[in-house]
Amino acid sequence: MDGDGDGDAGRAEHAFDRAVALQPLPAGAAGAPRRFRGHTSADYANMVGPFGGITAAQALQAVLLHPDRLGEPVAFTGNFAAALADGPFTVESVPARTNRSTQHWTVTVHQPDASGRDAVVFTATAVTAVRRATWGATDRTMPAVPAADEVPSAPRIAHVAWFGRYDMRYFEGPMPREWDGAETPGSETGLWVRDEPPRPLDYASLTALCDSFYPRVWLRRATRTPIGTISFSVYFHVDAALLAACGTGHVLAQARGQRFFNGYFDQSGELWSAAGQLLATTHQLVYFKE
Amino acid sequence: MDGDGDGDAGRAEHAFDRAVALQPLPAGAAGAPRRFRGHTSADYANMVGPFGGITAAQALQAVLLHPDRLGEPVAFTGNFAAALADGPFTVESVPARTNRSTQHWTVTVHQPDASGRDAVVFTATAVTAVRRATWGATDRTMPAVPAADEVPSAPRIAHVAWFGRYDMRYFEGPMPREWDGAETPGSETGLWVRDEPPRPLDYASLTALCDSFYPRVWLRRATRTPIGTISFSVYFHVDAALLAACGTGHVLAQARGQRFFNGYFDQSGELWSAAGQLLATTHQLVYFKE
Repeated sequence: MDGDGDGDAGRAEHAFDRAVALQPLPAGAAGAPRRFRGHTSADYANMVGPFGGITAAQALQAVLLHPDRLGEPVAFTGNFAAALADGPFTVESVPARTNRSTQHWTVTVHQPDASGRDAVVFTATAVTAVRRATWGATDRTMPAVPAADEVPSAPRIAHVAWFGRYDMRYFEGPMPREWDGAETPGSETGLWVRDEPPRPLDYASLTALCDSFYPRVWLRRATRTPIGTISFSVYFHVDAALLAACGTGHVLAQARGQRFFNGYFDQSGELWSAAGQLLATTHQLVYFKE
Repeated sequence: MDGDGDGDAGRAEHAFDRAVALQPLPAGAAGAPRRFRGHTSADYANMVGPFGGITAAQALQAVLLHPDRLGEPVAFTGNFAAALADGPFTVESVPARTNRSTQHWTVTVHQPDASGRDAVVFTATAVTAVRRATWGATDRTMPAVPAADEVPSAPRIAHVAWFGRYDMRYFEGPMPREWDGAETPGSETGLWVRDEPPRPLDYASLTALCDSFYPRVWLRRATRTPIGTISFSVYFHVDAALLAACGTGHVLAQARGQRFFNGYFDQSGELWSAAGQLLATTHQLVYFKE
């Protein structure tokens, strides 16, 4: 029992922690996939189904929670195979190969389909690794932008719950105000972003942040054509100490489209700490309707 | 029987086609994974084991050859879980989810480990899709570079077989000649590249080409530190007609590192047709020793 009001028990759990909480299901035979039970989060709901970043974070969480995990995430790719229904899901993580300092994971998220049969709604691979100190460098240049406290927070969008879970401060390429179909020449967006309310950065929340850019095709065309991320990758350039140093501060996030062709476009982005460290690089392929 | 010497039977098969040839193994029950038998290719040998691009192409081939395939590749991610031994392997492709116009695949490559037990050496996911004509644009700018025939071919490297399978014409950032440890400020390489001898471009060969950049850390540091690609992604921005239009011509390939941190760096690249179409964007995370 914690008598003083500052103890953990006295603090309200953050919505992100509730969203990525997974309950381990009984372990099968040795070497069998480890299964967890999760639940979609109303706090991170998108217009239809959940915010993709939270699904990716939940899948990564099934790796992070696995008792046989070696090291920390270095690469993650998730594929959105079907829209998740609001409700419970099962996530299965398998260490497909464990080496001396790296471990290769396959992850699948399952929900019953319309006929009640178990179906795959998300597939992923991840690589975890024990890092050692090496030579290092950052070849990409951090953009020169106004500090987070000099940029106003974007207004909330009432009907999209997950936008309210982030404080987003656009210094470049905000979401269009007029959906007038006027094409703009580029598709780059830059913002300072953090969890709202603030929460210390970790691998799961960094993963979700990597998917927090609104669709490039909306910016490019000022048209809300239906879209859906198909494949989403994160390369992690951090260790636990670097993450801890980020604390609850804003990260600088920047992304742009490269090619829009017959229903699909790609997006590449970077997330930087305020101190100037490139924390993650992220890429995705996105379906768009027309 | 083909009597004239110009028939297919009279033509020597290209080394790439021999390398990605897979023999279907007997199909199991309906819905069971489809398995194929392949073999590493001496023509595409690297210093140790095979060129990673050929392993990725073999894994994609197991999707392309699957009788239930819907559409053409739009995204592929492969993870190099262990060094392949020279010899046969098994590759398993599973359509984890089939939607109306997209299909999500999981792929694994297997070889016996040291103790003779079946082990995973490569994991992958892929997405295939039926594309429809839509609005399109290319936001990335094709670099202004000399034409392929104005750039000399790089000399072959006798002890690395796969280099001989490509005609590589560097206009920027060629492999260092002096391994003197002198750091250069950037890590960008640009080249015109095609199969050698020429071969019409297809999804499998485009995938292999996306992994044909030598390691960025070698350029950056003029030091041949041991490296290994860990995770490798390709986003395809082509359809069959666009690929056919490329024929056997050179493609313009450009890539650079972004961040080198404690044993891992990422690389992003683009492949363009000579006609100026962005054919593929590609990303990878690479281990480096020190």
